[in-house]
Amino acid sequence: MQEKIIVAVDAMGGDNAPLEMIKGSVDAVNQNPQIRVILVGQEEKISPILSQFTYPKDQIGIRNATEVISTEETPVLAIRKKKDSSIVVGERMVKEKEADAFVSAGSTGAVLAGASLITGRLKGIERTPLGTLIPTAKGVALLADSGANVDCKASYLVQFAKMGSIYMEHVMGVKNPRVGLVNIGVEEEKGNSLVKEAYGLLKDCQDIHFIGNIEAREIPNAGADVVVCDGFVGNVILKMYEGVGSVLIKKIKKTLTSSLTTKIGAVLIKSALKETLKSFDATEYGGAPMLGLNGLVVKTHGNAKAQEVRNSILQCLTFQEQRINDKIKEFLDQERRIKDGI
Amino acid sequence: MQEKIIVAVDAMGGDNAPLEMIKGSVDAVNQNPQIRVILVGQEEKISPILSQFTYPKDQIGIRNATEVISTEETPVLAIRKKKDSSIVVGERMVKEKEADAFVSAGSTGAVLAGASLITGRLKGIERTPLGTLIPTAKGVALLADSGANVDCKASYLVQFAKMGSIYMEHVMGVKNPRVGLVNIGVEEEKGNSLVKEAYGLLKDCQDIHFIGNIEAREIPNAGADVVVCDGFVGNVILKMYEGVGSVLIKKIKKTLTSSLTTKIGAVLIKSALKETLKSFDATEYGGAPMLGLNGLVVKTHGNAKAQEVRNSILQCLTFQEQRINDKIKEFLDQERRIKDGI
Repeated sequence: MQEKIIVAVDAMGGDNAPLEMIKGSVDAVNQNPQIRVILVGQEEKISPILSQFTYPKDQIGIRNATEVISTEETPVLAIRKKKDSSIVVGERMVKEKEADAFVSAGSTGAVLAGASLITGRLKGIERTPLGTLIPTAKGVALLADSGANVDCKASYLVQFAKMGSIYMEHVMGVKNPRVGLVNIGVEEEKGNSLVKEAYGLLKDCQDIHFIGNIEAREIPNAGADVVVCDGFVGNVILKMYEGVGSVLIKKIKKTLTSSLTTKIGAVLIKSALKETLKSFDATEYGGAPMLGLNGLVVKTHGNAKAQEVRNSILQCLTFQEQRINDKIKEFLDQERRIKDGI
Repeated sequence: MQEKIIVAVDAMGGDNAPLEMIKGSVDAVNQNPQIRVILVGQEEKISPILSQFTYPKDQIGIRNATEVISTEETPVLAIRKKKDSSIVVGERMVKEKEADAFVSAGSTGAVLAGASLITGRLKGIERTPLGTLIPTAKGVALLADSGANVDCKASYLVQFAKMGSIYMEHVMGVKNPRVGLVNIGVEEEKGNSLVKEAYGLLKDCQDIHFIGNIEAREIPNAGADVVVCDGFVGNVILKMYEGVGSVLIKKIKKTLTSSLTTKIGAVLIKSALKETLKSFDATEYGGAPMLGLNGLVVKTHGNAKAQEVRNSILQCLTFQEQRINDKIKEFLDQERRIKDGI
């Protein structure tokens, strides 16, 4: 069967590169014959590892890229300077249609900066949000923007809402996803000047299921399927998940070893508790897609292992099969028609 | 002994008014002879309840206020219309120096709006933040602003940082409190335009211990003693505490009853776990002071019971004894001198 999608994978990015990136790629192609992966990075490091795995040879290739961008480097500067880095080469491949998607666990800042500077936005998209899947009491929600655009206009938030809806409906299978605007209260008149303006615009959107404002406490409680905010607020939300979760878990662990009685109790609940806590770990969910690009860029966690890499690659296939970018273009066309008064 | 402080207490505000407000007031005056409480609200409702308690009669009085502002009303409108409400009367008492402080569990919006419209700011204070004590892995931190000012200028954040430092040092007893600016990364160049500008100003402050940017994940981890941000972001932080905490606890409870083994384990850890979770509940900490007012207004939780009311009243005494407003005036004088080039 002909492959349906070519995914460039950053073999050099992330704490566990290149091994886990390669392993995840092998798992993905072994699982699905419609995927072709091109590992981007230092060939002399990738080849010896890749040769240890068994997989259909025509489904994985290597594109040599001699440089590596570290997480310590200033993103925009690194992107401009290191033209032969795995991130720049991978994102250029998407731009030039050599690949449909690029998956990276490397420097978030560099991946995001490169996505807009190199891969580029769809015509009509004002800003491309990073969409991160976050756990809720009932499943997952998409947080857009989770950190790419820290200064936003109201019109950006409207596009985030529309793209987020398309993603949740067609990639995650949530029918008629509920869009909530992060605010300090549920009433329409609440909020700062940005969200007040955005509320007015979102209310008038016919193509999404806007449920109004959502207070932050309702986000983990599954109050919306698409959680819309600027990238500064989104980043705070994402990191509060991590922070509150990890401190609470540390405190619980300490409690469980505080006496002989609790130690015995701890043994009995240990495995069940571990599963529960894992299900509510924001880092457990796959890659974060950058929406609205000319192609697709997916950012996985810096500590991603093979499983997350594999899932992120499979996610690219769904994105492609569901023609997400065509659906985004449709609403952009509609926006243009409205603007032109047609 | 002469009383040191007069605290007006909103007898009508909150889910448990008037009973718990009265009970908390009685507890406070029984504990400390230097406090005089004036219960503000509908006398015919307050009197019969108050008469059931034992306390030094000269330490509690009643100020009749016939109207009540509900949480459903639009704050500013309610404050303007209901001139004889417990909130308006109580805040006017502070303005007119009939009371040193006002404590309310009523509508947050109305209490905050009234504080700046009626009680008024200290001369030189640009905006008055709501400072909320939040639990951390090692104790508590002060979040300022936690929701009063959703659109901020960089100069407001600087004043929040200074007032927050004074509060943490002199009311909470934290020596040389570390001030962190909420941002999406720790590097100086990170952030939106507001925090970038604020960073530059805070760096130059000699009178506070500014430790730079703090990522939201470090807030629960005790990364700073004074957490500075605009009121929109602060409100999101506060509500993420609540949201992540409550969903995680619900999930853990479900796990504990999932099998016979976990049920037995649950019995053994129950009380220790309960204590742990309580220590990390943002609603467990006393009232939130509004800083920079001509006097003091403290907002307690809507569901506050007697203990929180009592603690909030005692907190007002410390605020007074530590001459917090005099200390705030000192830095305002200094700011004025710098501005005038003296």
